[in-house]
Amino acid sequence: MEQRLEKQLAFALEIDKVKNIFRQTHLSGNGRNENDAEHSWHMAIMAYLLREYSNEEIDIAKTMVMCLIHDLVEIDAGDTYAYDSEGQKTKKAREDAAKERIFSILPEDQRAELIALFDEFEANETPEARFAHVMDNLQPIMLNDSNGGKDWEKRGVTAQQVQARQSKNILGSKKLNEVTDNIIKANVEKGNLKN
Amino acid sequence: MEQRLEKQLAFALEIDKVKNIFRQTHLSGNGRNENDAEHSWHMAIMAYLLREYSNEEIDIAKTMVMCLIHDLVEIDAGDTYAYDSEGQKTKKAREDAAKERIFSILPEDQRAELIALFDEFEANETPEARFAHVMDNLQPIMLNDSNGGKDWEKRGVTAQQVQARQSKNILGSKKLNEVTDNIIKANVEKGNLKN
Repeated sequence: MEQRLEKQLAFALEIDKVKNIFRQTHLSGNGRNENDAEHSWHMAIMAYLLREYSNEEIDIAKTMVMCLIHDLVEIDAGDTYAYDSEGQKTKKAREDAAKERIFSILPEDQRAELIALFDEFEANETPEARFAHVMDNLQPIMLNDSNGGKDWEKRGVTAQQVQARQSKNILGSKKLNEVTDNIIKANVEKGNLKN
Repeated sequence: MEQRLEKQLAFALEIDKVKNIFRQTHLSGNGRNENDAEHSWHMAIMAYLLREYSNEEIDIAKTMVMCLIHDLVEIDAGDTYAYDSEGQKTKKAREDAAKERIFSILPEDQRAELIALFDEFEANETPEARFAHVMDNLQPIMLNDSNGGKDWEKRGVTAQQVQARQSKNILGSKKLNEVTDNIIKANVEKGNLKN
């Protein structure tokens, strides 16, 4: 087999491991914890179906690929909970090392392409990255809302922490920012989120 | 909230259930059974990274969306194992009913669009559908091969059954059809697949 195809298939097999990286979010119906592959799948479909709400026109294929790959670094670096302030301090260094190892399994052109897409997502400065970030925030808040806010309650998360986390949604989608705002307000009213 | 957005978000929440539909395939490293969301995520990334091997030029966004949605009907219809001949007889009727219920949660234009994409995938006659089918076949055979063919062994599947299942790969990708052929041959030689 050509070396190029061999590398691509080795990468395809390696990323299977992200199915074992579990997040704090629980599936709807008070299910088990969600893993990164499921979360990324969900984000990519949502990006496609909700793309009309992006503030700016987006390249949807690029946005979906960003969604699909944005958590691969967690194969090595693990999931860092959004409200784990200690973990957040070391997150960048852990994820940078993971990014180099994992994407380097690919042929050089695809290694460079995927690292560029990953970095673009992280920088959150292009229309595609901003919209993908809205999906990264809306998807778990939607599940958590459907479960009566249990994930927040369990970790003692406050409305202010959730608001801070969701504060950049408005850059990607004014309309979907209203949705996340309303979910936060409703959960404060129900007592699921402390003020 | 506008009714349109409400329907889109209701659909986004409904499809969370596909994360609970487990397949016969096991994750690499002799892991647990894989679910449909994980399988679809894996197919979509593989479609993107391997698109250069499609026999014909493909619209990659369309192909990825096909990969992401092709198993949603299993929320109602369940997973029918590729080599379960009894289940295969009733599969179409069960999946047609599921398709109507699930995609009808969406606004009418998106309902029609996703049903058309689902049907196009099933018909396997366009370049995008054919390439998505190669991913649907290559992804589990790659995992099963990495696990020493345990999934075949457990169900007493023969090389002829696997070959029949993989027989249309050549329509989507001559190059990747060589890969699946080689995987089958290697597993027959190792005794993982009976002749």
